[in-house]
Amino acid sequence: MSAINIPMPREQLERIVRQVVRQQFADRLASGEQQLAAAYTPNLVVNTSARHMHITPDDLKTLFGPDAELTVFRWLYQPGEFASEQRVSIIGPRRRMIENVRILGPARKESQIEISGTDAIALGIKAPVRPSGKTDGTPGCLVVGPVGTIELPRGVIRAERHVHMTPTDAAVYGFTKSQYIKLRVHSDSTTTFEKVLCRVDEKFLLEVHVDTDEGNACDLANATGVELMA
Amino acid sequence: MSAINIPMPREQLERIVRQVVRQQFADRLASGEQQLAAAYTPNLVVNTSARHMHITPDDLKTLFGPDAELTVFRWLYQPGEFASEQRVSIIGPRRRMIENVRILGPARKESQIEISGTDAIALGIKAPVRPSGKTDGTPGCLVVGPVGTIELPRGVIRAERHVHMTPTDAAVYGFTKSQYIKLRVHSDSTTTFEKVLCRVDEKFLLEVHVDTDEGNACDLANATGVELMA
Repeated sequence: MSAINIPMPREQLERIVRQVVRQQFADRLASGEQQLAAAYTPNLVVNTSARHMHITPDDLKTLFGPDAELTVFRWLYQPGEFASEQRVSIIGPRRRMIENVRILGPARKESQIEISGTDAIALGIKAPVRPSGKTDGTPGCLVVGPVGTIELPRGVIRAERHVHMTPTDAAVYGFTKSQYIKLRVHSDSTTTFEKVLCRVDEKFLLEVHVDTDEGNACDLANATGVELMA
Repeated sequence: MSAINIPMPREQLERIVRQVVRQQFADRLASGEQQLAAAYTPNLVVNTSARHMHITPDDLKTLFGPDAELTVFRWLYQPGEFASEQRVSIIGPRRRMIENVRILGPARKESQIEISGTDAIALGIKAPVRPSGKTDGTPGCLVVGPVGTIELPRGVIRAERHVHMTPTDAAVYGFTKSQYIKLRVHSDSTTTFEKVLCRVDEKFLLEVHVDTDEGNACDLANATGVELMA
């Protein structure tokens, strides 16, 4: 399950080029040219993640049929990540349903559903705040696709706030991998989100992910500025 | 339009008694016994306000019939305020409807609807962040009751975060009326909300109101602590 053969838009390609430049920069930083830090301004982006599902190849087959593949609806900011055209409905113990939950690609080793606190209340699912992939002891739900249904045994979470960054970005900010930092969003509803997990990888672009409750609580769509702090 | 003749629960009466005691305390503070401040610990409560409507007597008649009165469903924390049994549906320009929006009593001089950012997006209404009552230039919506319908010309807002407090509480914290302060909620999703408006009145009990997006964003239901800061 991959996004091979799906054309990437120019914007996405440009990001990847910038990524290569950034990597070269990181290498020079690492080799001791510390004065470069002063010349480098990270391009901080904050995006809202709507409710979504990550899926295994097997679960995709069950829900969409044996020949199903994820197809790109929209490329996401992180290179290689995409919102797929495939959507499911999810049902919780209150027998309420949320429709049109998009699957994000590429496929993963474990299926997982990320919802907001508002969604969790609507569905009646006590979804804990967890980093992606840490699904031990989390509740499951019923997932309905056009061909079949699965009873996901676990994996319904509220995604822990996190920021993707390169080692260069981390160096410039003075953050370390897995550190919790803060995000301040300036708006009519200025808000500082704490416990934002630093995820550092050379393949990442600098981007904070918050959920829809968080994005709406701070009026992110009308924000006048964003900043990261230790 | 009032809540006369509706029995108040014991809990509500106890709050009012505490309020009188607090007022006496305030008077002594004001007369110069500043050392009292050290002995007084404010009882800070943070509550989530779900979407709701405030209504004029005329609009109530239009929606619920000429003899309609607001009847108490549940007393709220602030003395005299209540969630009524009367509910309406609201419809925005996307022709999507939100049902079961509760009217809060007592009736007011102007009808007003307070929704969350998530609701605003669902309805397609660009509701600005406003303190209650400041509805000039705000959008309206269609309001549907069991008897009639009104086209509210304005008054759909996202309520500005605010804290109700007595002059005593304000003195203890060192806050002044109309000052913007901060609320920090400690949880798995620790969050500091800024631009929290201080509303000071001798009739108030100390209580912060946030909307459902804000309450869910900071996981208020599972919070381990709350604090106010300048």
